[in-house]
Amino acid sequence: MSKVKIGIIGAGRIGKIHAENLLKHPEVEIVGVSDLFAGPELEAWTAARGIDLLTKDANQIIGHPDIDAVFICSSTDTHVPLIKQAAQAGKHIFCEKPVSMSIAETAEAIEAVKQAGVKLQIGFNRRFDHNFKRVREHVEAGTIGDLHIIKITSRDPNPPSKEYIQVSGGLFMDMAIHDFDIARFVSGSEVVEVYAQGGVLVDPVFAECDDIDTAIVTLKFASGALGVIDNSRQAVYGYDQRVEVFGSKGSVAIANDHPNTAVVSTAQGIISDKPLHFFLERYMGAYADESKQFIDSLVLGTPLPVTGEDGLQAERIALAAKLSCKLNRSIKLAELDELILQSAKS
Amino acid sequence: MSKVKIGIIGAGRIGKIHAENLLKHPEVEIVGVSDLFAGPELEAWTAARGIDLLTKDANQIIGHPDIDAVFICSSTDTHVPLIKQAAQAGKHIFCEKPVSMSIAETAEAIEAVKQAGVKLQIGFNRRFDHNFKRVREHVEAGTIGDLHIIKITSRDPNPPSKEYIQVSGGLFMDMAIHDFDIARFVSGSEVVEVYAQGGVLVDPVFAECDDIDTAIVTLKFASGALGVIDNSRQAVYGYDQRVEVFGSKGSVAIANDHPNTAVVSTAQGIISDKPLHFFLERYMGAYADESKQFIDSLVLGTPLPVTGEDGLQAERIALAAKLSCKLNRSIKLAELDELILQSAKS
Amino acid sequence: MSKVKIGIIGAGRIGKIHAENLLKHPEVEIVGVSDLFAGPELEAWTAARGIDLLTKDANQIIGHPDIDAVFICSSTDTHVPLIKQAAQAGKHIFCEKPVSMSIAETAEAIEAVKQAGVKLQIGFNRRFDHNFKRVREHVEAGTIGDLHIIKITSRDPNPPSKEYIQVSGGLFMDMAIHDFDIARFVSGSEVVEVYAQGGVLVDPVFAECDDIDTAIVTLKFASGALGVIDNSRQAVYGYDQRVEVFGSKGSVAIANDHPNTAVVSTAQGIISDKPLHFFLERYMGAYADESKQFIDSLVLGTPLPVTGEDGLQAERIALAAKLSCKLNRSIKLAELDELILQSAKS
Amino acid sequence: MSKVKIGIIGAGRIGKIHAENLLKHPEVEIVGVSDLFAGPELEAWTAARGIDLLTKDANQIIGHPDIDAVFICSSTDTHVPLIKQAAQAGKHIFCEKPVSMSIAETAEAIEAVKQAGVKLQIGFNRRFDHNFKRVREHVEAGTIGDLHIIKITSRDPNPPSKEYIQVSGGLFMDMAIHDFDIARFVSGSEVVEVYAQGGVLVDPVFAECDDIDTAIVTLKFASGALGVIDNSRQAVYGYDQRVEVFGSKGSVAIANDHPNTAVVSTAQGIISDKPLHFFLERYMGAYADESKQFIDSLVLGTPLPVTGEDGLQAERIALAAKLSCKLNRSIKLAELDELILQSAKS
Repeated sequence: MSKVKIGIIGAGRIGKIHAENLLKHPEVEIVGVSDLFAGPELEAWTAARGIDLLTKDANQIIGHPDIDAVFICSSTDTHVPLIKQAAQAGKHIFCEKPVSMSIAETAEAIEAVKQAGVKLQIGFNRRFDHNFKRVREHVEAGTIGDLHIIKITSRDPNPPSKEYIQVSGGLFMDMAIHDFDIARFVSGSEVVEVYAQGGVLVDPVFAECDDIDTAIVTLKFASGALGVIDNSRQAVYGYDQRVEVFGSKGSVAIANDHPNTAVVSTAQGIISDKPLHFFLERYMGAYADESKQFIDSLVLGTPLPVTGEDGLQAERIALAAKLSCKLNRSIKLAELDELILQSAKS
Repeated sequence: MSKVKIGIIGAGRIGKIHAENLLKHPEVEIVGVSDLFAGPELEAWTAARGIDLLTKDANQIIGHPDIDAVFICSSTDTHVPLIKQAAQAGKHIFCEKPVSMSIAETAEAIEAVKQAGVKLQIGFNRRFDHNFKRVREHVEAGTIGDLHIIKITSRDPNPPSKEYIQVSGGLFMDMAIHDFDIARFVSGSEVVEVYAQGGVLVDPVFAECDDIDTAIVTLKFASGALGVIDNSRQAVYGYDQRVEVFGSKGSVAIANDHPNTAVVSTAQGIISDKPLHFFLERYMGAYADESKQFIDSLVLGTPLPVTGEDGLQAERIALAAKLSCKLNRSIKLAELDELILQSAKS
Repeated sequence: MSKVKIGIIGAGRIGKIHAENLLKHPEVEIVGVSDLFAGPELEAWTAARGIDLLTKDANQIIGHPDIDAVFICSSTDTHVPLIKQAAQAGKHIFCEKPVSMSIAETAEAIEAVKQAGVKLQIGFNRRFDHNFKRVREHVEAGTIGDLHIIKITSRDPNPPSKEYIQVSGGLFMDMAIHDFDIARFVSGSEVVEVYAQGGVLVDPVFAECDDIDTAIVTLKFASGALGVIDNSRQAVYGYDQRVEVFGSKGSVAIANDHPNTAVVSTAQGIISDKPLHFFLERYMGAYADESKQFIDSLVLGTPLPVTGEDGLQAERIALAAKLSCKLNRSIKLAELDELILQSAKS
Repeated sequence: MSKVKIGIIGAGRIGKIHAENLLKHPEVEIVGVSDLFAGPELEAWTAARGIDLLTKDANQIIGHPDIDAVFICSSTDTHVPLIKQAAQAGKHIFCEKPVSMSIAETAEAIEAVKQAGVKLQIGFNRRFDHNFKRVREHVEAGTIGDLHIIKITSRDPNPPSKEYIQVSGGLFMDMAIHDFDIARFVSGSEVVEVYAQGGVLVDPVFAECDDIDTAIVTLKFASGALGVIDNSRQAVYGYDQRVEVFGSKGSVAIANDHPNTAVVSTAQGIISDKPLHFFLERYMGAYADESKQFIDSLVLGTPLPVTGEDGLQAERIALAAKLSCKLNRSIKLAELDELILQSAKS
């Protein structure tokens, strides 16, 4: 059996994680890696992994005749052009989130993929996490009955750097977008209305970047269910990733993962260790599983677990949240396109 | 030492709870009870407790020369007139929540109390619960640092009867009002803006009564902190009363109380008993403590733990939530009075 | 209906707890209290509770024509003579644990009670605790199947005073006797063999009193099940009272009770408050329930929940544990009487 | 840098786990595999992993000139002769537990290793588990103070087959040996006395094999601390592996690992999934870490984390437990050699 041949575009932290996970599959070969900042360090890294091709030019990956599929892990502004080119070149595509900051451009990318008949999976890794999956399983199995309330807590341990914040697209597009996807994933229902209230409570640097660091987002789903997400850029006790789905037959709630189960009892109180620090620790298994399912889809023809449409919908909710926060009113997803037009004009 | 002499107005479920708790204090004597539906059952009940006076007429309580203070536990529509009369008669007052459905009338009652120089405590029992108190203690001690997010989950085990719903004042005034008070209590900050999204997901009877059964309320505090409350009239697993306060130094979260700590492990899974069923089970200790602190205030002159002003502020938030839900927009508390005027005109 | 008339013998801490609980029952009247150290303080205490008779002479209680039942809460060495006298006087008896330090004398007391046809309940309060009761319920309901292992952890927060240790009868008779009773209670099976290993690890004062402060006791039950108890006189994090019953269908385990459910998450870790401090806090509800069931047995004829025989069996196990520790070998309960005889001779 | 060259002796379940883990290290090469039952299946398995040499003859591995170290994963009766041969051949050795059923033979193997100057690590995998390690860290850090009680619960989800039981060496040597090692590991103290009480409560097949399926073992440590282990061959709710260490400053306790943190609340109760099923799921990370540390010891010269002496001491405790159970008396480790001699004579 011939191997699936992969090219990696963008070998930063997340690109390397995908590469390491792909290298564990005997049926996968990484043919080449491109990175704008390819240098001695990356040369050593690829060499140690038996990857022969390292280039600064993504076209050498996309245009490579042996490559079946590309992992687009470069900066967000490059996603759409790369998707279009890769689609035209007949390559299957795994693309990191978000596809773009513009839902029009994301829609174009999806259209290009459709025209080319290639596969496109978006990097919403949390769907593959053991805890989030278990929530979805219970919802699908009917354990919870009709859904009434979906609650998501999503807080980072530390704020990113100013440089990162400036190009991040803001809290909703960069961070909460995962939560919007999870809201759709666990509920199996589309979001139809969004209200967001945000603030700068963690660090004034967010205000300087015209961003926020704390938010409460209320969601209304097509099913009638209500949702609420709370976000913070800084939970000093560590990465806080919880979901609760509540309905007519009960609820299912997931708590954080911890590095161990040790509980210490002393004269001062009962103490345990903080949750797993951040996404690398918490979602390591999820990253492995998402790339495995992408490979399975190529090799075995199994359905893609996260599609371009999933990417688009999450972006639409993020944009609605951003607008809601700005206008301080609730935004219906149905009015989003018109609002964007208006916003473009003004 | 002479005893504090109490009259009870309204001897339904909650009136009886207060009476039982008061009877445990050696320094308290219950002089009389009035109830519109006084009959043989209530006669037996008062007789067994050595209470000599039972009447259908609240004036016999308020006008009784021996009585120092009254507990107003009759229906909400009677609260304001009774407070005014009792204040005029120089009686101290413990009044159940809400004071009234009209913030104007509540303000009048508070004014009457002020003029008379008597004491008025409102029945926000949760402030006296061991869990909620512990949250407040941690906030006051600075354990949490500056507050960023206050989250409250408040769900009843069963919806009330249609008869109850019709006169309840609606989910926000009847049920969430406790949560609005707790939001103020644990944060120590005033609410300045409210957005509420509601739905009828539990039972169509709520729609028939022009009410809702499920809600998400976003709060903005004067301190800049954000808050969110989720309410449901039916959690099939039992009374669900949780709070989480999150800030710059960490978080404090309280879980439900359970009837026991037993955990059963079987081939089917790990199972424990549901939370304490409802407010009578969960807040029994809190009810005892709130009446004790009222008595202490009379006897020892300690400050009242919940004032008429606290009652008024919670009602204002409830009203704002009701309007927000109706108008589907966020309501600033500062615009509330004008909105009420407008609403009255239209 | 005439009231049940009670006399209290011994008004120390535990005697007062029983009295307070009895005073809450409208069908009970405390006629009198005797205490060797009756003085001004106790006079004030009885006066405030409307108890007319206070005496240093227990005979005035036992011989009082109006008294139906006595609560024997005096020092252990007085239990047997008082039980015999009370039985002869036709009084029902509630007696604190242990009945005596001598199983021969305890047997005599039981025989006297039997001859007189009065009721005798022993103060094994833990059987009435919400957690322990739930374990028993699960075992009785068959949730656990055939029992294989019964594990009991029982640790005090602080060691008692030297004065107390000297007359306590030792760790097994004074402290672990509750655990021996619980082992019988939750399992519904008799103990047939005991092995105990003990040590002085907390405080040398225990060695000075020829006692131990730490122990592991292995039990073998008539059913074939095995049991293990670990005891310590000092758990610095508070009163530690847990049970786990394991069998063919699974297990049931109870954890400690805590003063609240608050969990604080900070940069230092996840922290909650220590368990309820000691038996007064932890078992307050159990004390109320045990006296209520005794009164119910007198008034309604319901079966006694803890009998003299239960007292005797727990003492036999305690004695076997003491001998096992001393001889460093396992002791069969069947050989206990002979060992006592031998021990008496040598 | 040249690679470390490894030979695997015995490619059953555990041999394959070690091989898979070793293959993840870029600095390791598996030169060959021997297995008495080598056939087509194992040929395919080795071929897929690029392992060229597969043989039925362990001597081809031990005698292979390129091999630096062997993993002995064959049946227990082969361990000692293979260790001796490998030591003589100058190979470093990783050997599964137990080294042998005879402490004399284990001592001989250790002596052979010592004479040859090679390294020998024993497969006590639990020392590498995140939970057990955390307990040891707290003990070493002094969090617990002086140790008073060490409690270990160790229960398998299912009993093994009759064939397995017959050659297993019995519950103490096969199963509890891990717990004896953990007792030494977490306490940092040697066991000086053992009392074991056992029974056949799970399945009569254990009695047919002259074995037990349930046990309580009391340990006395050189430090004066007491220990207790409870074992069962069948916990229907899954693999149960807990430890609690209690001392003068408090306690540290570890609970089981679960496949997810989901908690479902329904009208029937609060339910979560069972613990990770068995050792393969629970200790997968620990297996990876133990082989990594062995390789590190070879490459970097770091100390061996588990030595032959650790293997011997655990076997001595297991043997003492077996004798204690048989003789129904406590056994001092100091008298073990003499008892074995007596036992051999009779």
